[in-house]
Amino acid sequence: MSKVTIATVAERAGVSRQTVSNVLNTPEVVREETRERVLEAISALGYRANQAARQMRTGRSRLIAVRIEPSRDGINGSVLDRFLHGLTDAAAPAGYRVMLYTATDDTDEIATYESLLTSYDLDAFVLTSTHHGDVRTSWLAEHEVPFVTFGRPWGAPDTHSWVDVDNAAGTAAATRHLLDAGHRRIGFLGWPAGSGVGDARRAGWATTLADSSLPGTGLDRAVADGIESGAAAVADLLPSVDALVCASDSLALGALRAIRESGHTCAVIGFDDTPVAQAVGLTSVSQPLTEAAARCIDLLADVLDHSGTPRQLLLAPSLVLRQTTPQGATT
Amino acid sequence: MSKVTIATVAERAGVSRQTVSNVLNTPEVVREETRERVLEAISALGYRANQAARQMRTGRSRLIAVRIEPSRDGINGSVLDRFLHGLTDAAAPAGYRVMLYTATDDTDEIATYESLLTSYDLDAFVLTSTHHGDVRTSWLAEHEVPFVTFGRPWGAPDTHSWVDVDNAAGTAAATRHLLDAGHRRIGFLGWPAGSGVGDARRAGWATTLADSSLPGTGLDRAVADGIESGAAAVADLLPSVDALVCASDSLALGALRAIRESGHTCAVIGFDDTPVAQAVGLTSVSQPLTEAAARCIDLLADVLDHSGTPRQLLLAPSLVLRQTTPQGATT
Repeated sequence: MSKVTIATVAERAGVSRQTVSNVLNTPEVVREETRERVLEAISALGYRANQAARQMRTGRSRLIAVRIEPSRDGINGSVLDRFLHGLTDAAAPAGYRVMLYTATDDTDEIATYESLLTSYDLDAFVLTSTHHGDVRTSWLAEHEVPFVTFGRPWGAPDTHSWVDVDNAAGTAAATRHLLDAGHRRIGFLGWPAGSGVGDARRAGWATTLADSSLPGTGLDRAVADGIESGAAAVADLLPSVDALVCASDSLALGALRAIRESGHTCAVIGFDDTPVAQAVGLTSVSQPLTEAAARCIDLLADVLDHSGTPRQLLLAPSLVLRQTTPQGATT
Repeated sequence: MSKVTIATVAERAGVSRQTVSNVLNTPEVVREETRERVLEAISALGYRANQAARQMRTGRSRLIAVRIEPSRDGINGSVLDRFLHGLTDAAAPAGYRVMLYTATDDTDEIATYESLLTSYDLDAFVLTSTHHGDVRTSWLAEHEVPFVTFGRPWGAPDTHSWVDVDNAAGTAAATRHLLDAGHRRIGFLGWPAGSGVGDARRAGWATTLADSSLPGTGLDRAVADGIESGAAAVADLLPSVDALVCASDSLALGALRAIRESGHTCAVIGFDDTPVAQAVGLTSVSQPLTEAAARCIDLLADVLDHSGTPRQLLLAPSLVLRQTTPQGATT
């Protein structure tokens, strides 16, 4: 290994790694003579600027913080896991690393911001799961902490940079695909009104039906997310519908089970193209999560460079066709 | 908010947060007069020891690094994602935060260690996916970097602390369950020999059959992991077997498909109890990932306290019974 590291410096100076680290970060705790020996080794070996030195130059720690969600049913949770993989991948070439934290709700998350900002040198936050009345973004803005969000600021003004996926476009494409295949009684299985993402997914279905002068009234159900609730909700929609657009793969899986048990035939499209959809052959709307993560890092770099005004990016989802929808139709 | 933060101190001293941070971390870059004003505010407000100060006391950064794997088929990848959730949850109460990195192979990972240790103050690493001839652990040991592994040091001596799940016990329990239900032609679908985890999962099946004086010869197949390879491999085992233990849920899903298409009847047990197993009703061996993560943090705390010799923990998996195995049998 030709790279010069703290370990190499420590070896040459005949001190511990901790002592080298102290010389670089808290020189005042190191004895004069030791300090000089370490600095000599650093100079002789051409040890490159370490984090502390770089931070002094740039005012940056190169560390960004992201919340990791509790594991939920494991189906929808995979979406944010995939975003996290993408974020870590995109951060490294840009010179950033990702630090994780957990939080039970918005209030707890803000308390965690306080704690993190006190304990670590952080450059910025990447927020996920934005929602109506989100107090986190205003807290960060007030405290002048740089951040971007994956998710638009539902109902709040566009005063910060964000990346989002066009949820309504996703369910619109799903509904159009079913219309093109000849379906005319297309239902929607979603969540109770009030969540930005859920309302947008419902709107994509509703407006596409309206554009074709087809009725949607009575053909939708709103339930809590989950396989069981999906199965229960769709049972009484049969046989009124012959196709179903769902707000999540969990709901779609429940719907598939209820349809199979009922003996009826009904096309089904889920949302998020999770591993479960791939495994069971469920047609589903796919979010470009890797791209969304990469764009978040791009926007964050701009924010940290103070270059320009906040920017907003809305990415288009795509429909992944599998066995639960008619084959051969075009979208 | 009653908590005193860098922002509170900055406000009282009439300076920016960066200036407060500079006073705490690199006082030499701050003008004397400003520094005194900030120190006065810190003292008046009772600002608690920040990370830099704490690190000076304890020699610790409270930051641990973990590799995040590339998203694979999304089924098996969920195992390490769940471990990561557990690790982040367990780290916070112990006073640690988790930093992520990616690496393409062992050599790249070691280069990443160099880079991370140069650029960040890291306390330790948590390694996953240990394997035969793992050069990462010896590199960390040589460079005196504290670490624990989730996964035993296959073939290498137990010179460091690790947590692992008893893979052989998992497939042994699966095989016993099938024996108790009356199956006598129990096959195994696994990976090519050479991977520690894969060999252990095969051994649990083989020894349990041998203990019952039942033949296993010719009833096992070794293929690359995946749904398609699982489907192809099991097709020519039918109808020789009436039950199948699989080394992963991916292989089990492929097996289920091939069995359904063949018209034969065959019980199937997967491994890892992934969300896909839950969604399709697949009986599967479940690893205690949350506990494994918590124990990794426990052992790491011991390592960092230099308390005692390396410790090794082998956790027992459990069998989650669902529709793809006979009901009513006891394990």
